[in-house]
Amino acid sequence: MFLNHTMTALSSGMASLIVPMPLLATVEAENSPIVLAGVLLSLVVIYLASKLGAEAAKRLDFPPVLGELVAGVIVGVSALHLIIFPESGLSAADSAVMTVLQWINHLSPAALTSVYESQSEVISVLAELGVIILLFEIGLESDLRQLKEVGTQAVIVACVGVVVPFAAGTVGLMMLFNVPAIPAIFAGAALTATSIGITSKVLSELGQLKSKEGQIIVGAAVIDDVLGIIVLAVVASLAKTGEIDVSNVIYLIVSATAFLIGSILLGGIFNKTFVAIVEKFKTRGNVVMPAFIFAFFMAFLGSAIHLEAILGAFAAGLVLDETDARNELDELVKPIADLLVPIFFVTVGARADLGVLNPTLPENRAGLLIAAFLMVVAIVGKVVTGWVVFGQPGINRLAIGVGMVPRGEVGLVFAGIGSASGVLDKPLEVSIIVMVILTTFLAPPFLRIAFGQPVEPPSTGEPSSEEPILAGKS
Amino acid sequence: MFLNHTMTALSSGMASLIVPMPLLATVEAENSPIVLAGVLLSLVVIYLASKLGAEAAKRLDFPPVLGELVAGVIVGVSALHLIIFPESGLSAADSAVMTVLQWINHLSPAALTSVYESQSEVISVLAELGVIILLFEIGLESDLRQLKEVGTQAVIVACVGVVVPFAAGTVGLMMLFNVPAIPAIFAGAALTATSIGITSKVLSELGQLKSKEGQIIVGAAVIDDVLGIIVLAVVASLAKTGEIDVSNVIYLIVSATAFLIGSILLGGIFNKTFVAIVEKFKTRGNVVMPAFIFAFFMAFLGSAIHLEAILGAFAAGLVLDETDARNELDELVKPIADLLVPIFFVTVGARADLGVLNPTLPENRAGLLIAAFLMVVAIVGKVVTGWVVFGQPGINRLAIGVGMVPRGEVGLVFAGIGSASGVLDKPLEVSIIVMVILTTFLAPPFLRIAFGQPVEPPSTGEPSSEEPILAGKS
Repeated sequence: MFLNHTMTALSSGMASLIVPMPLLATVEAENSPIVLAGVLLSLVVIYLASKLGAEAAKRLDFPPVLGELVAGVIVGVSALHLIIFPESGLSAADSAVMTVLQWINHLSPAALTSVYESQSEVISVLAELGVIILLFEIGLESDLRQLKEVGTQAVIVACVGVVVPFAAGTVGLMMLFNVPAIPAIFAGAALTATSIGITSKVLSELGQLKSKEGQIIVGAAVIDDVLGIIVLAVVASLAKTGEIDVSNVIYLIVSATAFLIGSILLGGIFNKTFVAIVEKFKTRGNVVMPAFIFAFFMAFLGSAIHLEAILGAFAAGLVLDETDARNELDELVKPIADLLVPIFFVTVGARADLGVLNPTLPENRAGLLIAAFLMVVAIVGKVVTGWVVFGQPGINRLAIGVGMVPRGEVGLVFAGIGSASGVLDKPLEVSIIVMVILTTFLAPPFLRIAFGQPVEPPSTGEPSSEEPILAGKS
Repeated sequence: MFLNHTMTALSSGMASLIVPMPLLATVEAENSPIVLAGVLLSLVVIYLASKLGAEAAKRLDFPPVLGELVAGVIVGVSALHLIIFPESGLSAADSAVMTVLQWINHLSPAALTSVYESQSEVISVLAELGVIILLFEIGLESDLRQLKEVGTQAVIVACVGVVVPFAAGTVGLMMLFNVPAIPAIFAGAALTATSIGITSKVLSELGQLKSKEGQIIVGAAVIDDVLGIIVLAVVASLAKTGEIDVSNVIYLIVSATAFLIGSILLGGIFNKTFVAIVEKFKTRGNVVMPAFIFAFFMAFLGSAIHLEAILGAFAAGLVLDETDARNELDELVKPIADLLVPIFFVTVGARADLGVLNPTLPENRAGLLIAAFLMVVAIVGKVVTGWVVFGQPGINRLAIGVGMVPRGEVGLVFAGIGSASGVLDKPLEVSIIVMVILTTFLAPPFLRIAFGQPVEPPSTGEPSSEEPILAGKS
């Protein structure tokens, strides 16, 4: 803009420039305020959608995360085209946000495409930072000492609940639907993790949180989360190399587990160092800054050793949960998570093209069958876990199994990472998201039935302040 | 990655694929985890630099923001090359962060350049979001009612302190150094805004905050900030169109002022609506989310009417400062600002190539002369303001003038926006940054001299918990 500016009365008399001027105001530099405007407008849309969706879900007695996800679907590629991404095949002209920017700034088509790509890239990275902070927060809220108390029953339920859906999903997709190994494994892995947050909220509403069944469900869900994140790290790494050989799989499982256990052990030492550092700092951000340096460094490390950034962030959360700064940190991370995590949930919904499951189109039948198959495996694979509980006569096995059904955030993390890395095709990605939505949607009424209680949710105001967006400690 | 994966025993038998696979895993999608890794590593470097810089400055009794800026210079293009940007002319191979990524991921040169550009874009937008949140926070902390009390003296001091350095700087740059009008006006404008935070901290250390001089200085600094942001919006808009005609300038001044006053007036109405909305929300982020929807929307609006995003963010802060949710909001915004604002300060330092002022190179003489000239104007233009105070016999005019000298954050906002938009060439940009560093560095001892106190800072521990990163309410 500097080179072609109209010289006016004030400056026209100047012939020689002593000061060397920038040789070239690049297209990027010229467009940078427009990219920022696009990011701001996209964030306003994402935040509005997420808040309205979460509040609507809450009022209908569903978990807020479900509302955020559905709101994402509505503003995304499936409906309003407010938040879309180049990978969907849609161009800048299809994006409502870009149309507004075009109308304000009168951009050339080439400039518009460049702005569209840049702002999509930025929103994608913000969503990835959101999921990193989500896992950091889940780590901060997961109390490992609790695991020792829930005992063998929970461990067995968790392991069966990971192995059965994973094996049935992967083998079924490969055998019945001829899906190649890597995406089949990825989709199978997405079926593994139970949502602690949703499960524990419904249990607490039913007054069953402290029952034997409730204790086993919550304990298993915590272990499930840890196993799910290890599975994700291994599977995502397989997807990167594109190779599946047994030694590599063993190496990955060992390194992911070692990474997690190693960080927890080192955390015992780092623990005191962290508090000592925080106490020495006297400027603003004395707690939050070292915590995020550690979390982002661990996330980078997870990524650098070819596992996943979120594994590192989760490990960082587990470590810092052991420090004395824990409570202060919980409070400080909350507003940051409130601002970044919804970007992840809304964009997962926005990227999901529900059109690929439109039942009126014959070419979608394969995709629909896959979605139905994943749903069945997702439910059956968890319900069976109730029957592996041993030595507990009279226990409500159905309730335990149903309690493990809702997937929630970790399933979405799979869908999001699978879609971003290109390993999942659209029907598979959408099937996973639909599976997460439906299991989360169905679990509360089914759990009430399994416990022999009326299906109607209590008509009184919601007393629980616990938020099921995240896996809580209770 | 999907197309060329090695088929193994498990998948080799599959010939036909019923499910359509993604046609093309684009370079962007393949590199997206690497871009994320680059962003994470850059953030770790930025946070480490900012924290170490701030703490070192604090211990040397300088404002922390100065330490963040100097740390940015050290990790940036002038020294360590840890945080560099393509606009500096340096390639991916020059970047230490990219070298690490290259070593981990074995990228092709083309892929490395693409990752470098993407991650630089993301860091730039994060820095811009940082300055938006900085101005939002300054707005939240500026109490407009306070202004009515400080009276005419402060208004006059503020106006003279804006007009004199602006006029002298702009005309001097054009006449003495043949700088074209637009960059000269931009640099002149960068000389206008006094830092409330730094000034009020030094005054409180000297026990002069409640003195007549102190009251005038702080009042004038608040007005100064508002005037400076209006000047920035006008000047940045001029830089965008590249044209300077009187009607356009008048239009811009009127629209920037109207935007600010209009939002404050509307804020009186919106005020109650905001609190009512916040009280209705029952899910997480019920306060922080509506606040940021409003702030980002106002920032977008400021950008959409061809002024500046930060003007909108500042106005949003002023409006929300009037609501009952103010105190809660202050607490919630703090950790978010702690995480995003340092990205802005460190990247401003990192982008500044101090090499263009290297005195041993003869071609740098013009730049050095400009830097020296800006320094003189920056100091003299503010010191003279002491002598416009009237009807106050015996008042310490020198102290008032010296108190207006430190520039701090708003000056850096000018340098950052000027550099991002390409309107400032390197010597001018670096001169502004050096001016900010030196005025901030010199003001505390000079103010002690002006008030007739010993130059040595008190040797006892720093009792003030007030943080001069931001303009505080005193």
